[in-house]
Amino acid sequence: MSEARYGELRDRLSELWDLVKLGGLAGWDQQTMMPPQGAAVRARQFATISKFVHEQVVSDELGELLEELRPYEESLDYDSDEASLIRVSRRDREKEVNIPGDLREAQARASAEAYPVWVEARRTNDFELFRPHLERNVELRREYASCFEVDEPYDALLDDFEPGMKTAEVREVFARLRDGLVPLIAEASEQEVDDSFLRRGPFPRPAQQELDRIVLGPYGFREGTWRIDPVEHPFATSFGTDDIRMTTRWPEHEFSGVFAAMHEGGHAIYEHNVSRTLERTPLCRGTSLALHESQSRMFENLVGRSHAWWSWGFPEVQRLFPQLADVELDDFHRAINKVKPSLIRIEADEATYSLHIILRFELEQDLIAGSVAVADLPGVWNERMQEYLGVEVPDDARGVLQDVHWSRGTIGYFPTYALGNVISVQIWERVLEDVHDLDDHIGRGDLAPLTSWLRERLWRHGRKFTPQETLERVVGSGLDPEPYLRYLNGKLGALAA
Amino acid sequence: MSEARYGELRDRLSELWDLVKLGGLAGWDQQTMMPPQGAAVRARQFATISKFVHEQVVSDELGELLEELRPYEESLDYDSDEASLIRVSRRDREKEVNIPGDLREAQARASAEAYPVWVEARRTNDFELFRPHLERNVELRREYASCFEVDEPYDALLDDFEPGMKTAEVREVFARLRDGLVPLIAEASEQEVDDSFLRRGPFPRPAQQELDRIVLGPYGFREGTWRIDPVEHPFATSFGTDDIRMTTRWPEHEFSGVFAAMHEGGHAIYEHNVSRTLERTPLCRGTSLALHESQSRMFENLVGRSHAWWSWGFPEVQRLFPQLADVELDDFHRAINKVKPSLIRIEADEATYSLHIILRFELEQDLIAGSVAVADLPGVWNERMQEYLGVEVPDDARGVLQDVHWSRGTIGYFPTYALGNVISVQIWERVLEDVHDLDDHIGRGDLAPLTSWLRERLWRHGRKFTPQETLERVVGSGLDPEPYLRYLNGKLGALAA
Repeated sequence: MSEARYGELRDRLSELWDLVKLGGLAGWDQQTMMPPQGAAVRARQFATISKFVHEQVVSDELGELLEELRPYEESLDYDSDEASLIRVSRRDREKEVNIPGDLREAQARASAEAYPVWVEARRTNDFELFRPHLERNVELRREYASCFEVDEPYDALLDDFEPGMKTAEVREVFARLRDGLVPLIAEASEQEVDDSFLRRGPFPRPAQQELDRIVLGPYGFREGTWRIDPVEHPFATSFGTDDIRMTTRWPEHEFSGVFAAMHEGGHAIYEHNVSRTLERTPLCRGTSLALHESQSRMFENLVGRSHAWWSWGFPEVQRLFPQLADVELDDFHRAINKVKPSLIRIEADEATYSLHIILRFELEQDLIAGSVAVADLPGVWNERMQEYLGVEVPDDARGVLQDVHWSRGTIGYFPTYALGNVISVQIWERVLEDVHDLDDHIGRGDLAPLTSWLRERLWRHGRKFTPQETLERVVGSGLDPEPYLRYLNGKLGALAA
Repeated sequence: MSEARYGELRDRLSELWDLVKLGGLAGWDQQTMMPPQGAAVRARQFATISKFVHEQVVSDELGELLEELRPYEESLDYDSDEASLIRVSRRDREKEVNIPGDLREAQARASAEAYPVWVEARRTNDFELFRPHLERNVELRREYASCFEVDEPYDALLDDFEPGMKTAEVREVFARLRDGLVPLIAEASEQEVDDSFLRRGPFPRPAQQELDRIVLGPYGFREGTWRIDPVEHPFATSFGTDDIRMTTRWPEHEFSGVFAAMHEGGHAIYEHNVSRTLERTPLCRGTSLALHESQSRMFENLVGRSHAWWSWGFPEVQRLFPQLADVELDDFHRAINKVKPSLIRIEADEATYSLHIILRFELEQDLIAGSVAVADLPGVWNERMQEYLGVEVPDDARGVLQDVHWSRGTIGYFPTYALGNVISVQIWERVLEDVHDLDDHIGRGDLAPLTSWLRERLWRHGRKFTPQETLERVVGSGLDPEPYLRYLNGKLGALAA
């Protein structure tokens, strides 16, 4: 009887998840394929799907099913798919019932309307064009935060991306991070590193596309399950474990696109390897944004900026971009790891990257608290960039308008990037304990020992466990910035030597 | 009060239409972009969206709203958007309530599962691979037909694409068509026409892509509203009047892709020009498949195979494909109009095309009646191709497996192609009455007089009127094959002279 009811739950959640994924498809399409004038109607379509999803989640039928299945859940192993699906869905529903359907719909619509305006505003360096949309998004996020009983409003936003995480905890981790990074960056910035050949363009798009295929090869995607397309702001998503969509950038003036592809490949391979038994359920994705980001940063940086990786890959780079024929591997490796405070987050080096995040984390709290008005944002942005990174912001396009997130109404997301950095090295240290010759494998373009480890310990579980449970299971402890700082110190020290 | 209730209806129908269009996006994506292994989950997503759409249409709330709005509807002008939306939606709902939700879902799923198998079966010339899927689709269509009280089961299927049309009427029109076409084809086939230069490949894809952009220019699409992508079997769809998706083929071995683009352009420009006041409603599309096809065939044939059109366009063709530099316009025009019974429907000339359709129309009736078993279909197909067109079918890939339709479970659709031919010339004759110098305009690549006429008389009304009402309004009569036969006789006579 319980099993039959569980079957009903599973069917309901699968249909719900189908709707979520169709909304995801509409989002992917908007950013990769949609003719620009389609935006207005697309905004309404997002609002509609969001409304249907909300109605399904908060429906009494689902609530009753979940209640009725409590004893069944308790009779099962905590780690089982079944118990996990019931447990996580109940938690999702308990959160969602606090949110009025109208608000969900308004958010979906505002976000879809703001996105194309942001694209245009960034292109034309016109913050004023974007301002009313950002004001609307901030207002809606404030309204959203007020739906929950939390210590501080930002907790409610953070919880969407990092369930269970508190703003206070992030503040503490970030303080330790900043204290560690500042002297490290100061020292590393003194090194004279010639990376001018990385801007020895043009780097033709077809060659970049081929390089992406080459570097993504060792990830081990199953055949016929993925594609990669160029967009304004790269992301990865999936509509099933065998329907993976990566996106990237192929700038022709500099050698950087491949790192975007390796980054998104890290997100993609996580979703690709969620257990098939979780297909078409709300557990079929990474458990949180920080865990997700730990994977993308691991593949982008710990693999993708390592000496070993390019000892395998650099000959291909030279074949595709003959203008780099006279560059030595060691110089290439040093150049792609150059520490230099700069304007653009997604182009930042491993060391300064987290300072970009800390700046955004603080500004988001200010916006939500109302202590900084949207109209004043460009000025405050530019001041803090000067203060934290010592760089002058020449225009808003390369300043406050650079990121897509706020156009999507996603506030509370940025911290997960820096947390991802932190977690990536916590996990990496554990991998190294088990795989002693990892570097040798990477040097042959062989990522199988790494991907097997991650599949078994992390990926296959999808969203069965909370981020805290997951981290505890994978690394045996909570958040800890020390491994990351240790790694950066070691790496930058070696490069300077 | 009534107006408020009408607002509710409109909101409900808009949300419903959003779901329909998201399903459409999933279909477009499947055929253009989706990694092949995504098919299994996509099939389930289709089934889910189809289920939600069905539930919305048959919901009591919608039924009550429509009932309650009867007096309001009667108080309005029949032609008004409001009265039309109420009237057409009531009719849609009355049809849909006959169909069990499970059946709709099963159809959506079977169709999504069959499509990739068909692609593979056609590629490998393996009918047996596809057979069980076709059997399933036929079985589901039979079950579907049994939900309705109709004179013959095929009526129910035809009605999905050509509302109000009866199989008996089609049979009669097709009989007259066949009687007219057979002697005409016999005579035209005797002409020796050299079209060998049309296979003087390669015709590189980028050049074909550019040619498509050139010939679609005069259609007058608004900027930033459309795209065109290559697929297995071309189609056009839209997710809003400003989000138009055409697809085409770019075969490199022969000059034919441009006609697919002009054909799909005809479908696309119809949907693009539906009145914006009907956006996000079930009226925002062409009124029937035959009317739709009348537009695609008009642009493909009446414009796209005319001497005037290529007197403008042929220099571009020669620029893009220098291997045609020595070909005279007259010879090109004769070659693209060559009448020759052949294997492939979508490559057939204007005269023999309708015989391909008549064959499919008859086979579909046989399949639904059970007088031909799916297993026997390839044999029967090959026999009738011999009988009707005098051609030998060398393999199933170029025979019974050539069309996508049956893989999608769409049976009853084919007749609309030949009806589209018939209607295209009925409309064309009316255009010529109003626009005396149409040929001169076409000869300058200027389609504005044509598109203005069609926008005003046909396109903007979307699905407000039934196909019968629409035809009556546009041409002042019902279906009549004589103009089409007259046109073909005149054209082929002139070419032979």
